[in-house]
Amino acid sequence: MSCTVPDPLSTGIVVIGGGIIGLGIALEAQRAGHRITLIDPDPAAGATFAAAGMLAPVSELHYQEEDLLSLTLASSARWPGFARTLAAETGLDIGYRTTPTLALGADAADRAALGDLREAQTRQGLQVDRVTTREARVREPMLSPNISAAHLITQDHQVDPRALAKAILTRLAAVGRERDGTEPSKTLVRVRATGLLHQDPADSRSPVTGVLLADGTEIHARETILANGLGAAGFEGLPESLVLPLRPVHGDILRLRVPAHLRPLTTATLRGIVRGLPVYVVPREDDTVVIGATAREDGNPGVSAGGVHQLLRDAQVLLPAVAELELIETTARARPGTPDNAPLLGRVAAGDGADVPGLLIATGFFRHGVLLTPVAAHIVLELVAGRGDPAWDRFRPDRFSPALKPKEYA
Amino acid sequence: MSCTVPDPLSTGIVVIGGGIIGLGIALEAQRAGHRITLIDPDPAAGATFAAAGMLAPVSELHYQEEDLLSLTLASSARWPGFARTLAAETGLDIGYRTTPTLALGADAADRAALGDLREAQTRQGLQVDRVTTREARVREPMLSPNISAAHLITQDHQVDPRALAKAILTRLAAVGRERDGTEPSKTLVRVRATGLLHQDPADSRSPVTGVLLADGTEIHARETILANGLGAAGFEGLPESLVLPLRPVHGDILRLRVPAHLRPLTTATLRGIVRGLPVYVVPREDDTVVIGATAREDGNPGVSAGGVHQLLRDAQVLLPAVAELELIETTARARPGTPDNAPLLGRVAAGDGADVPGLLIATGFFRHGVLLTPVAAHIVLELVAGRGDPAWDRFRPDRFSPALKPKEYA
Repeated sequence: MSCTVPDPLSTGIVVIGGGIIGLGIALEAQRAGHRITLIDPDPAAGATFAAAGMLAPVSELHYQEEDLLSLTLASSARWPGFARTLAAETGLDIGYRTTPTLALGADAADRAALGDLREAQTRQGLQVDRVTTREARVREPMLSPNISAAHLITQDHQVDPRALAKAILTRLAAVGRERDGTEPSKTLVRVRATGLLHQDPADSRSPVTGVLLADGTEIHARETILANGLGAAGFEGLPESLVLPLRPVHGDILRLRVPAHLRPLTTATLRGIVRGLPVYVVPREDDTVVIGATAREDGNPGVSAGGVHQLLRDAQVLLPAVAELELIETTARARPGTPDNAPLLGRVAAGDGADVPGLLIATGFFRHGVLLTPVAAHIVLELVAGRGDPAWDRFRPDRFSPALKPKEYA
Repeated sequence: MSCTVPDPLSTGIVVIGGGIIGLGIALEAQRAGHRITLIDPDPAAGATFAAAGMLAPVSELHYQEEDLLSLTLASSARWPGFARTLAAETGLDIGYRTTPTLALGADAADRAALGDLREAQTRQGLQVDRVTTREARVREPMLSPNISAAHLITQDHQVDPRALAKAILTRLAAVGRERDGTEPSKTLVRVRATGLLHQDPADSRSPVTGVLLADGTEIHARETILANGLGAAGFEGLPESLVLPLRPVHGDILRLRVPAHLRPLTTATLRGIVRGLPVYVVPREDDTVVIGATAREDGNPGVSAGGVHQLLRDAQVLLPAVAELELIETTARARPGTPDNAPLLGRVAAGDGADVPGLLIATGFFRHGVLLTPVAAHIVLELVAGRGDPAWDRFRPDRFSPALKPKEYA
């Protein structure tokens, strides 16, 4: 075995992690004129591979997450342009659809829960229209006659995360090659990243100069963006005293094929509360539907039999014809959760009143990674350009690290 | 594209179809000294791939299938020797296990159904021991406290059909090469068979001389055995007026991994009736379990969402901990069903009082293919040797073809 150290690679911005957030940041960085390198042994294979791709700031509003709402709404507003530009750049269909969402309740308690949620939503100025269950069934004839409540939400949309990731990867390689003269293997480096490089190797709060890979390659960059989901916690070389309180929240999710005689199973995205448990059915244009998703903190990475059972059971309560679909895929992946369900996004305090130069973090997007991709990419690129908006400081990745005395807590 | 016709291949016995029945026949033929050729583009990929491998003449007894019982018991008696010999020949573990079976009822009606079945079983001289649900739970502590009835059946065993098929394929290739000097590619020919060859090509009741393959190869053989499951119906070149009334009965079946803290989930094979629906849980030594199986006549080849839901739901009624297992595989395959649920096995009348020389059929094994493999192979080889036992004439493949006036109906 030879032990030659590979030559270092110099790039403008290095992004660690090729999930949807890392991909979105790399794309936006390239659009801003930067030469980029994305590091991931297997891009878009984590939560992005599982995600249903709902762009749903309204349905996803949870109590006491009003801070997050400003972010999800900002991203939602960016989605049409983001999708249009990417489609124009690549000529690929990323499954961006603006069909509406129906929020549904199964029993009387679910109806009450849905009513409470609607109050919170309308208090925030969001539009949620009550419709009768009869109207809902005129819109979607496959709905069970036994649903207890229905709300129409026109602001929540969808994208196909796998198609989206593929389009971004295609675009990154094309611009890398054609504009920057970078080999595809150096735009996307399929090697594991092992740690940050610092100007002063002995000082983890000194400027970050790039990243070290598992094969010994050093990648030098002006900015290093850590966007590797759960892998960010405990990543080698992070500033001392930085706490990234990430935990895996596993989700089970199903893909099913709708047989010809049941098409369309539904035209709207359905989001139900069935005896207190959430379940959704997202229709795709290829005559498949996505049914999801559980939220497990049991640490089991595999597909949960109980989770699959629950999803099929509850989806059938809303749409009895689900029993007649073909189950084509069962997937489980971990979402990177945080204590306040908001992302860890931005620069990191060095403890001296300034931020660590050259380092940005973008992780902890939990159930909102796809929705938040455009705004996360925008925020990161504004910070790179020195134009960070203080409004987003509340999502700084050092907000759980009092020892670093970030501005928010100063 | 070249259009040269390949040279014909001469063999002793050609077996069309590499499911478990074809494999068993090929193995037994080779053991009897014949040079064999097995034809299948993708052996052991059909019902054999799905099958749980229960060797269960007692549990599988159905009303008005007493004829079939003589066959299942005869095969059950052959299994220990069959398994031992194959293990000795190959050194491979085929998962043959003689652990007992617990028949379980969920509610009061299931208890009554199980009691009726036990009466039928004991009337046939089969041993089925009532145990209290408390005793059942001492044996299998993971059982639900809410089961209504339990019967212990020590005569029903199991094998791993995938391991079994692999062992037979390994053995066929080894003996073909070492004893008969046949290249592995001519012991197992991975090409689709398209039709039977006849001595008189114009007379479908004239002696069968082999088989034609999709690539144009002719395989000449002294005996041609049609063991290609549902593909046998309508196979080109079958004797005129022969009716093979096969229909696909699709089954969904699950494989799950038992996490360490739940091992063993069960040591016995569990066969439940849960609110009238059958479900079984077969434990494997690799800490997985097989949960099956639906029986659908809807013609849908894919995995049924409703079927998966039903299996997970009903298995959890017997074993609540099933919810905590990892779902690692969902599979659907078609079993070849017949009007009387018994196989189509033996020679075919030529309509002149004699049988068509050179042709044997072995299909329609429905839910019993793995169990019946040793006896089916034995019966076929006895017929090849001219020593057919008239007791098995009741399973002749021409029994639904009155125009052929087979002896049974003469």
